Amino acid sequence: MPTSTEVKRPLVDLYSDTITLPTAEMRAFMAKAPLGDEQKGEDPSVNELTGLVATLLDKESAVFLPSGTMCNEIALAVHTRPGDEVLADATAHVINFETGGPAALSGVTVRGLPGVRGVFTREQFAAAVRLPSRYAPRTSGVIVEQTSNAGGGTIWPLDTVAEVTSIAREHGLWTHMDGARLFNASVASGVRPAAYARHFDSVFVDLSKGLGAPVGGLLAGTREFVEAAWRVKQRWGGAMRQAGVIASAGVYALRHHVDRLAVDHENARLLAEGLAGIPGVAVEPEHVETNIVLFDVGGTGLTAAEFGRRTHAEHDVRVSVFGPTTIRAVTHLDVTAEQLPLAVEAIARTAASGTR
Amino acid sequence: MPTSTEVKRPLVDLYSDTITLPTAEMRAFMAKAPLGDEQKGEDPSVNELTGLVATLLDKESAVFLPSGTMCNEIALAVHTRPGDEVLADATAHVINFETGGPAALSGVTVRGLPGVRGVFTREQFAAAVRLPSRYAPRTSGVIVEQTSNAGGGTIWPLDTVAEVTSIAREHGLWTHMDGARLFNASVASGVRPAAYARHFDSVFVDLSKGLGAPVGGLLAGTREFVEAAWRVKQRWGGAMRQAGVIASAGVYALRHHVDRLAVDHENARLLAEGLAGIPGVAVEPEHVETNIVLFDVGGTGLTAAEFGRRTHAEHDVRVSVFGPTTIRAVTHLDVTAEQLPLAVEAIARTAASGTR
Amino acid sequence: MPTSTEVKRPLVDLYSDTITLPTAEMRAFMAKAPLGDEQKGEDPSVNELTGLVATLLDKESAVFLPSGTMCNEIALAVHTRPGDEVLADATAHVINFETGGPAALSGVTVRGLPGVRGVFTREQFAAAVRLPSRYAPRTSGVIVEQTSNAGGGTIWPLDTVAEVTSIAREHGLWTHMDGARLFNASVASGVRPAAYARHFDSVFVDLSKGLGAPVGGLLAGTREFVEAAWRVKQRWGGAMRQAGVIASAGVYALRHHVDRLAVDHENARLLAEGLAGIPGVAVEPEHVETNIVLFDVGGTGLTAAEFGRRTHAEHDVRVSVFGPTTIRAVTHLDVTAEQLPLAVEAIARTAASGTR
Amino acid sequence: MPTSTEVKRPLVDLYSDTITLPTAEMRAFMAKAPLGDEQKGEDPSVNELTGLVATLLDKESAVFLPSGTMCNEIALAVHTRPGDEVLADATAHVINFETGGPAALSGVTVRGLPGVRGVFTREQFAAAVRLPSRYAPRTSGVIVEQTSNAGGGTIWPLDTVAEVTSIAREHGLWTHMDGARLFNASVASGVRPAAYARHFDSVFVDLSKGLGAPVGGLLAGTREFVEAAWRVKQRWGGAMRQAGVIASAGVYALRHHVDRLAVDHENARLLAEGLAGIPGVAVEPEHVETNIVLFDVGGTGLTAAEFGRRTHAEHDVRVSVFGPTTIRAVTHLDVTAEQLPLAVEAIARTAASGTR
Repeated sequence: MPTSTEVKRPLVDLYSDTITLPTAEMRAFMAKAPLGDEQKGEDPSVNELTGLVATLLDKESAVFLPSGTMCNEIALAVHTRPGDEVLADATAHVINFETGGPAALSGVTVRGLPGVRGVFTREQFAAAVRLPSRYAPRTSGVIVEQTSNAGGGTIWPLDTVAEVTSIAREHGLWTHMDGARLFNASVASGVRPAAYARHFDSVFVDLSKGLGAPVGGLLAGTREFVEAAWRVKQRWGGAMRQAGVIASAGVYALRHHVDRLAVDHENARLLAEGLAGIPGVAVEPEHVETNIVLFDVGGTGLTAAEFGRRTHAEHDVRVSVFGPTTIRAVTHLDVTAEQLPLAVEAIARTAASGTR
Repeated sequence: MPTSTEVKRPLVDLYSDTITLPTAEMRAFMAKAPLGDEQKGEDPSVNELTGLVATLLDKESAVFLPSGTMCNEIALAVHTRPGDEVLADATAHVINFETGGPAALSGVTVRGLPGVRGVFTREQFAAAVRLPSRYAPRTSGVIVEQTSNAGGGTIWPLDTVAEVTSIAREHGLWTHMDGARLFNASVASGVRPAAYARHFDSVFVDLSKGLGAPVGGLLAGTREFVEAAWRVKQRWGGAMRQAGVIASAGVYALRHHVDRLAVDHENARLLAEGLAGIPGVAVEPEHVETNIVLFDVGGTGLTAAEFGRRTHAEHDVRVSVFGPTTIRAVTHLDVTAEQLPLAVEAIARTAASGTR
Repeated sequence: MPTSTEVKRPLVDLYSDTITLPTAEMRAFMAKAPLGDEQKGEDPSVNELTGLVATLLDKESAVFLPSGTMCNEIALAVHTRPGDEVLADATAHVINFETGGPAALSGVTVRGLPGVRGVFTREQFAAAVRLPSRYAPRTSGVIVEQTSNAGGGTIWPLDTVAEVTSIAREHGLWTHMDGARLFNASVASGVRPAAYARHFDSVFVDLSKGLGAPVGGLLAGTREFVEAAWRVKQRWGGAMRQAGVIASAGVYALRHHVDRLAVDHENARLLAEGLAGIPGVAVEPEHVETNIVLFDVGGTGLTAAEFGRRTHAEHDVRVSVFGPTTIRAVTHLDVTAEQLPLAVEAIARTAASGTR
Repeated sequence: MPTSTEVKRPLVDLYSDTITLPTAEMRAFMAKAPLGDEQKGEDPSVNELTGLVATLLDKESAVFLPSGTMCNEIALAVHTRPGDEVLADATAHVINFETGGPAALSGVTVRGLPGVRGVFTREQFAAAVRLPSRYAPRTSGVIVEQTSNAGGGTIWPLDTVAEVTSIAREHGLWTHMDGARLFNASVASGVRPAAYARHFDSVFVDLSKGLGAPVGGLLAGTREFVEAAWRVKQRWGGAMRQAGVIASAGVYALRHHVDRLAVDHENARLLAEGLAGIPGVAVEPEHVETNIVLFDVGGTGLTAAEFGRRTHAEHDVRVSVFGPTTIRAVTHLDVTAEQLPLAVEAIARTAASGTR
């Protein structure tokens, strides 16, 4: 008979902010959540969550979905027609981590712009928008990822957001914010989520990253946009039943886990400073703006894959491999300040085990 | 500020077996479930559930998904190439209730065969398989819905299953069972799930129908099939994080809610017999094989839409509208034998309020 | 070195009206055609042809395409959104002879209605249009094939066309005529092409069937529709360069080969009457309305495939296989009245060679 | 009544090598071509052409298609699965001039690599191939455009071709050559077409560019590949009937118009040298390898759009606009050495009319 594998967690887990476990308080809240059929609009917990997010982002409406990837992909499906081209930074999640979804699901190409740490300029953007032509694909929209994950947690400055989306509107383009870590940007910058969101036709926010909820994200926009998104949600199998069992965790997280993101940011800075002194490891603490630390291990003579393997196997600290010699470490709800010296030591020892 | 709507349930809710609420015992079980990141294979509850289902269906592997629609649609995506044609009964869920998914997501056409109560014959099937041709679409597979929902909960006989799938194999077609209510079929017929399942390349079973879990379904097949399904799951946004919060409900349901489906079947038969005496209502109790009762209200002079509206608004009993004059009533975990007379009376009064 | 196969034509070729060869006069006309780049709107012959067809159909504009299949498929691509459902007769070309294009190219399902000889009724159509729903596919349009090829060259009566398209408009559906043999319908019924065409948003007419041109078809509609069609034409590779080399044949055919379709119709009737007396062959001359004759050879004990093979191999007369025991014979520009007795005799001898 | 626009050609037309008109000899050859139905394999001229091209490229088989875009897009459709990623130079035709076809038709993303004059290096290529991952799109193939149009007619060196395709094979990638101007590359470099072609799974060659035929291209590969391509050709509406009317022009062009491409190359060099002396015009004659001349008019103070407009309207010389300040001029069958001084003068005068 098949048995559940008991999975042991590493001593320090910097793999991602997606691996957080619900707290006891969150679990208790979930266990008491009022429930109903979300497809009939009868789940009170889902209704509360979508209302809460629409308000936070100052949008007319929102829809709850089982993942952030589905939030981005449904936004694309609603905004585009097959053959369209969409612009995003070359590091964008939608290009690199959604398994080719934009072309497969919506028949569109997302073209990557070569920004700096995940942020492109208004000039780059303006030059990339194609003029109408019978031959060229139609540039129909733009996606901004706030914060930029593969850029290292970089915050898109409000001014850049305003400029890029203003150019987009001039050309009749739609605008979408992949706000997987919008709350990190907001807490770090002091800019309210709605102040970023108002520049976009649609906005996705994630519950299962820094907020620490187990499952789901929300996609917000006009009532008409959300109605169209619901239709796609149904078609793709994202429509659930008593979804309040998970949506309730989102309600709890929005009430209790937003402000504490500042702790993750502080921990990321401390971690980066700790790593800065390790021979063979290149890190730029001045570019650690939120909860993500990227560092290069090329100087150790190890590949990132081997570096990550050793850190985990030999020192019980888990990080993630992000490039041939690039490692990503992420702080989150389950990482405490006390764990940071352990992580730094593990990385230092791994670096020392390298060939150079 | 948006507030959650407190949703009142009807006195008797025969709308669907999808509207069941988790029991207190199920909730308690969920609250203690061990969790992890399902995308990394680290969620013990998800692992337990997929193992349990693979065993029950005697398949190599299974994947947990947020809905039954996604189970069917991913099976199509893995089995087909764009341009393929798939055969199913004309009443099939995949044709009528998945918002056009097969064509939109996989570029395939599902052609409906005119069966009886959702079940077509081997002769109909054999005649419908197209010969290879440069002009015709390629018939590449067949879907059997067990039980047939829009057919009235009809069980596909094991012999018919064996014959149809045997013809399919002769022509090189893949075979998929939409087992949304496979456990109903199994409990009613005494045929083990695996005995049906062994005729199919892939099988979907639902947790959120008669089993009473809040969210999700499973798709089972060979290890290679499930690996391909995981890739599509990722692309479509069906990959979750600490999915054990919902998968655990499935574990509980499989342990505690399968055998009790016999109660729902008995209730459906009792309901159908109660309805049989109502003037203007046409029902065939001899064709009520599981938990679904279809009846025609044309004889009352009311449309099904108006009939359903009155039953709900005036008598607090909810049914669903299934055709111009067809109503569906479904028994489930939250319907007791004591409620049946109330339902019969509500329907009788509504019928009496008609114009004929 | 590869050499061109000199292909010998059969004594009488009733395979299809697509196999006609250009006449000497048509070839001479083509050889002198003024040419230019059609993608820049600079091909005078293409411009003349599109103007001619737009006028004939009383539409604002038309686009020249390399095949009738592309005309139908581009109409679908322009009119629909992925997930839509389209209604057509179950025998329709777009369902059975376009290799699954509607789902593969546009993500839509064409659902077949069980008409009689390729023509469904207003009642069948009205019952098939789905009501708006979050679960069901959206019925977005309807295709009428004039004449119905697989129905046996049946003419859609103008009244039925008017009724069906009127219901379509009431439900907000678009309407398209697959007019592959519209000129046959028109010549046989005396109803002008524009009188049929005015009921449809878009209309395709073929040049390479009864008209006897070698390549191409036209798709007509509003200026906006044709502009959108051009964009798809470009994307799918239907945009040519000096397309006047083939479009000129269409100009010639429209001037010289329309009225003579009456001869083909007379020949088809004569052929059907000739076949009516053959033992084992079932044919209904009263249903031969244009240039297509369907007959059943089940009574000869031969399959259609074997029947067709023998007719060709042993008597040098070619027909086409249309079903397990159904044969199609088509009259056209290259079939003369003198050839008909030869064809009847060949079919009679083949029938006599059967096993019953 | 709509009338055909008589289109006047410019004095010198350097717009593209696609605008050539068939010569009197080619027309005479076409008028006598043996014909048949290409869908049944019965068109001798099509058969001769496909045989000729298969031999030239040393491939098993070839298929005739109405355009080069369809050749590229069908190759993609056959080689890929939805969600795949394909690599090509950022300037590639398939990215910039096929209206978003790869995503719309095959669900794939073509990612552009930043090469030099349309040619990327083996190192760039090797770094761009993604490692297998559940999250990333699968890199499944690579397209090389020979010559690079938007790169300025650059020839991909045989060594680079060999290196890149060798890396591709190591990673299990398919390889396709967009050989729209393969014959130009071949004539200029002295490398036989088959010597380039043998490095690729599939190869497209165009008839309607330098070769001067009015319509069509060919796609070559293994017999199995071509059979799959035929199926897509049928589905997309690329299957024609008596296609020999245009294929015959290709036969003629391959016999008579290949070697003379050397004249176009000489003319392009002469043109570039003529332009090199014009103030405000930047051109690099040393990079003119075949029949394309790119030059920058930024130094004249005019945009390319305005520059092109003036050259045409005021001096009756047509060029094409290729970027904000980039102009393309192409030599071909209808451009003579005698016309070059006229073109240079027209461009010089336009430059002089600028604001700087």
